[in-house]
Amino acid sequence: MSLETLISRFRDQIERTLHEVLASENLHDEDYLRMLHYHMGWRDAEADADQYMGSSGKRTRPLITLLCTAASGGEWHLALPFAAGLELVHNFSLIHDDIQDSSLVRRSRPTVWALWGQNKAINAGDAMLAYAHLAMQGANGLPEKTRLEALQILDETCIALTQGQHLDMTFEDQDVVTVEEYMTMISGKTATLIATAAELGALASGAPDEVRRSYRAFGHYLGLAFQIRDDLLGIWGDALSTGKSTTMDIESGKKTLPILHGLLHSPELRQAYRDENKGRADAHAIRAILEAIGTRGYAEGEESRHINQALGCLNQAEPTGEAGAALRKMTLQLLGREN
Amino acid sequence: MSLETLISRFRDQIERTLHEVLASENLHDEDYLRMLHYHMGWRDAEADADQYMGSSGKRTRPLITLLCTAASGGEWHLALPFAAGLELVHNFSLIHDDIQDSSLVRRSRPTVWALWGQNKAINAGDAMLAYAHLAMQGANGLPEKTRLEALQILDETCIALTQGQHLDMTFEDQDVVTVEEYMTMISGKTATLIATAAELGALASGAPDEVRRSYRAFGHYLGLAFQIRDDLLGIWGDALSTGKSTTMDIESGKKTLPILHGLLHSPELRQAYRDENKGRADAHAIRAILEAIGTRGYAEGEESRHINQALGCLNQAEPTGEAGAALRKMTLQLLGREN
Repeated sequence: MSLETLISRFRDQIERTLHEVLASENLHDEDYLRMLHYHMGWRDAEADADQYMGSSGKRTRPLITLLCTAASGGEWHLALPFAAGLELVHNFSLIHDDIQDSSLVRRSRPTVWALWGQNKAINAGDAMLAYAHLAMQGANGLPEKTRLEALQILDETCIALTQGQHLDMTFEDQDVVTVEEYMTMISGKTATLIATAAELGALASGAPDEVRRSYRAFGHYLGLAFQIRDDLLGIWGDALSTGKSTTMDIESGKKTLPILHGLLHSPELRQAYRDENKGRADAHAIRAILEAIGTRGYAEGEESRHINQALGCLNQAEPTGEAGAALRKMTLQLLGREN
Repeated sequence: MSLETLISRFRDQIERTLHEVLASENLHDEDYLRMLHYHMGWRDAEADADQYMGSSGKRTRPLITLLCTAASGGEWHLALPFAAGLELVHNFSLIHDDIQDSSLVRRSRPTVWALWGQNKAINAGDAMLAYAHLAMQGANGLPEKTRLEALQILDETCIALTQGQHLDMTFEDQDVVTVEEYMTMISGKTATLIATAAELGALASGAPDEVRRSYRAFGHYLGLAFQIRDDLLGIWGDALSTGKSTTMDIESGKKTLPILHGLLHSPELRQAYRDENKGRADAHAIRAILEAIGTRGYAEGEESRHINQALGCLNQAEPTGEAGAALRKMTLQLLGREN
């Protein structure tokens, strides 16, 4: 089976599971569920435009879960509830992130809060987090002990996620942020959920603890590389392919890795960020400064370093079969190094 | 043992369990945990005012859980993790509620969002919900099946809670809200968590399904009565004893039971609410209208009716011992009918 066929089969099953979890149960929840379905990419926002639109997310995290289950010798369909739970946690965090970042657009569509207002969007995110937990409960094919353990890992992940998010918001008001602080922040905000996606895949297959740890470490480094790539795209990405403005990270004053590198090495950039009267930074000028001091090469180097660490951990996990090959290939593809 | 001694012993253990769940684990989470500890009433908001201040919440929900465990013949201390989980779910919803209602004060102190801003407060609420789930995992003394079931009930409760919250926000923009719609809303927003508090108490004791259902029904009617009383206090309560302004519900245009009754029976009140140019309603005038048409008596009657239903369900559950007597007494006390 080709990687494409495997991924497409997994995606179909993930989507089916997600639909089952977010199903309507009574008359009162119609309007409430519409927000969740809209965010998942299944529906238009209008009550009279009810056609399903197909998913618009990549479903990266649940795919990693299913691939890790299969690659560690388990039955991938047993891990579908975990996969769905992780995707819903990811989407809960996106709904709240968009409020916190004042982002009006996600995946080329208006964000939930932009359409329904902040208050209902806070509540929709809360609901998504509760549904994430209910999704996990669907793993009837696995021992009770395993299901409890998966839920425990999920909630420890949510704690780490909110710690990372808190740090990220704290950095906005902080003059100096070290690379170490930044790595702590993205470990929580981005890497922990991908690490958990990989670990729960191995947990579902009943893999030994050592193998589970290797999968978790793989996901951790993959997540770090993923975030660094996202930071790169936030400055040098193509607006069309990312679906968001490439100047946004600069304009919002986000402390991403390229910006931190620039602030460390360019007095000119420090001055630009310090100058409060200036209002919004001039994105083009800042990009030029970053290129002159070699920031892009530095960040790309950090990205590669973490991909290599991820691949090293994956090798330690000794993934087998098509799923194992797919994990290797997907890791490179995800990060845009292979097509 | 007197009711006071029993309640005070339970409260101490609840507080101790809550502290264990919200303990600091590493250096990075100091600022993050401060928000949660502040909300729980344990700390001041300032980094240099670190003294513990004692709890300021009544811990009603976890008390109900422990009392129901003991009254149905179980070991109350085994239910402490469930009790703590429910209290944390309640506090998660308060943190987000305060943002959604723009409430600046809770329990006579500034709300979390008023001190740390909306974005960090959204995240603090999310964290509180994750900790609620972790708290539940502490029930090692109970069978795995029971713990999984409790988590499932908790998340179904969170779904109902967010559905109720969504309806409440929808009502703000809705001209006509029926009493039936209102009851659906408060069933989700308030009653479901109290119903779950009672049910998880009985679940922890291993009570038969029928007994569990009676405890759940008891909590449900208690919760409805509790909300109707809160609505009454929102208009006729003493600002000092509730810690919030008694004119707030009127000024914010909330659709509470007294307001709905008034809108149904007073053309004058309908006119006052329709008149958008008027801005904030005149709370004193509205209170006078409500008193003239007998709204207060109607709402108090509804409150009593639900207390009686709660007591009927409690009798069906056949609660035993001091805890059983305490549940009966507490039900009447909670609603201010006995001191």
